[in-house]
Amino acid sequence: MRLTAFTDVSLRILLTLATIERDTPTTREVAEAVAVPYTHAAKAVARLGELGLVHARRGRGGGLRLTAEGREASVGWIVRELEGPGDVVGCEGDPPCPLNGDCVLRGALARAKEAFMSSLDPVTIEGLAAPRKASAGRVPLQLTRR
Amino acid sequence: MRLTAFTDVSLRILLTLATIERDTPTTREVAEAVAVPYTHAAKAVARLGELGLVHARRGRGGGLRLTAEGREASVGWIVRELEGPGDVVGCEGDPPCPLNGDCVLRGALARAKEAFMSSLDPVTIEGLAAPRKASAGRVPLQLTRR
Repeated sequence: MRLTAFTDVSLRILLTLATIERDTPTTREVAEAVAVPYTHAAKAVARLGELGLVHARRGRGGGLRLTAEGREASVGWIVRELEGPGDVVGCEGDPPCPLNGDCVLRGALARAKEAFMSSLDPVTIEGLAAPRKASAGRVPLQLTRR
Repeated sequence: MRLTAFTDVSLRILLTLATIERDTPTTREVAEAVAVPYTHAAKAVARLGELGLVHARRGRGGGLRLTAEGREASVGWIVRELEGPGDVVGCEGDPPCPLNGDCVLRGALARAKEAFMSSLDPVTIEGLAAPRKASAGRVPLQLTRR
């Protein structure tokens, strides 16, 4: 059971930006800090920008920062947006599942997915970052402008 | 957010066997009925046998049938067994996530995964099959011995 790689990368970026709030790293720096390819990070940053969670300022002195909305956003809401409404199994795959017509399991799995998301609703990016900021002295992750 | 293809195939097989309880189809027949490659179905049947959910009788007149345990088993338990204990994101990937050392998100995602599984705990294979059996007249799925 896995979230998409896209959600994974997006959450890493949000968590990183939440921890280093006084800095405005570039997408390339963030990509290196969370150990993902630059192109993946750039796509995630674009989507996080569309969702209003990250602001990217171009040019010299520019960089990425979390918006106030991004700081307060619910992780449940973010993961719902990034994952979309699809099934957790391949009901509509190619070929589609022949049981699909009157499959009671599909509804049970949809409710289970909702239980997953609901569990993340009270969690905010800011809340997740707080313990990391408090222990910043022992955090190996460094974002340094070169 | 997806369960593995292996879990998907396994659930399709269990649901099919639960619906056609008076028949003992072969693995090949079940594979065709749920529209998955034979080799995938065979691996899933082997694992479902190990878990005590499916009994496979070899030879002429043999075939697959759900065991009493398989009929009463909780879908939450089955999905936990098939999915294993891994993270829903790539914390331990290659390369591992640099945030991993003190990531609070990892615990939140583990609790969300547990909420997903718990939601499936009261669901049984037999309970899922009951509405399908009741509407068997309009179910397009047919398992016919050739």
